[in-house]
Amino acid sequence: MSKRRGLLVVFSGPSGSGKGTVLKEALKKCENLQLSVSVTTRAPRQGEVDGVDYIFYSKEKFKELISQDGFLEWACFCENYYGTPKAQIEAQLSEGKDVVLEIEVQGAMKVKEECPDAVLIFNLPPSMEELKKRLIGRQTDAPEIIEKRLQTAVWEISQADKYDYIIVNAEVEKAADTLLCTIEGEKCNVNRNKNLLATYK
Amino acid sequence: MSKRRGLLVVFSGPSGSGKGTVLKEALKKCENLQLSVSVTTRAPRQGEVDGVDYIFYSKEKFKELISQDGFLEWACFCENYYGTPKAQIEAQLSEGKDVVLEIEVQGAMKVKEECPDAVLIFNLPPSMEELKKRLIGRQTDAPEIIEKRLQTAVWEISQADKYDYIIVNAEVEKAADTLLCTIEGEKCNVNRNKNLLATYK
Repeated sequence: MSKRRGLLVVFSGPSGSGKGTVLKEALKKCENLQLSVSVTTRAPRQGEVDGVDYIFYSKEKFKELISQDGFLEWACFCENYYGTPKAQIEAQLSEGKDVVLEIEVQGAMKVKEECPDAVLIFNLPPSMEELKKRLIGRQTDAPEIIEKRLQTAVWEISQADKYDYIIVNAEVEKAADTLLCTIEGEKCNVNRNKNLLATYK
Repeated sequence: MSKRRGLLVVFSGPSGSGKGTVLKEALKKCENLQLSVSVTTRAPRQGEVDGVDYIFYSKEKFKELISQDGFLEWACFCENYYGTPKAQIEAQLSEGKDVVLEIEVQGAMKVKEECPDAVLIFNLPPSMEELKKRLIGRQTDAPEIIEKRLQTAVWEISQADKYDYIIVNAEVEKAADTLLCTIEGEKCNVNRNKNLLATYK
């Protein structure tokens, strides 16, 4: 029997929802789940490792890969390109690994279009009040930046109904378990098991 | 905040798929999951406890409850009535408990019709060969009975695509975990969280 193909998982959530922390915890708990490393043209920051934090490309190389249809999705922010490379993800999925992309709402919609098999999971804060509290608690952003992040969060959450699953991150450990459960449960979805059912005659 | 309503879970699978064992293990692991006790008019067998194994009713009382629309589904086998009582399940769901019904395919379809919110999970043996081996291994049935059970199993499995999730019971402990994961994951299904999303403004 050939190895069962892994699941492509898209994980999104507003700034302050703690999606990075939840994902980190889930990756620690489940070695079959792997993070997709994005490609970027921005310069590495101190301590960032090529191939771990990002895959660092020149703009020329990035544009060449765009022309070869080599990205699942890509975008340009502040003159820097960011993209999700197809080949690497395909290799991981073929090996049976579940691959998770931590990307924004627009990127998630592009991935869903390109890969209708992907499962989209949205990470919610327990409430808008709690989100506000978390963003203020960071003490890194000016009030007007926080206000802008909150407005973006409201828009992002308004798009959450386009996702397949909603996780509420009230407690990181529990949210990570729920994320892993959602992935395992989705593998049992009848629509992913039609070929299996056909083998029972 | 009012208690979140529990999930109504229908669990089916062919004779020999080990669904009873998987369910027993899952119930042991998760106290929020409760088994719905069926009503029957057949006489209690030795050791069976009223209200635990079955709720034992007279035929008159059973028919009265039918006329009051008191069953989610009911059927008559060999002159005995069997049914799933609505009131008890409603009480458990309101308390936030997840309630699981271990019923056959026809009953499952009736429940889905009556309660479109129910989640239907089908328990598969690892293969038809393995199912046959298990049925023969029991050493309780004559060859023609085993043959009949296998034919029924083939029909039941042909209906599994009407279920929401498929679990393969290769190993009881793992199948029980998968069952619980599927239930937890389903609670995160976006279609069950539209009201929650509407609270984020």
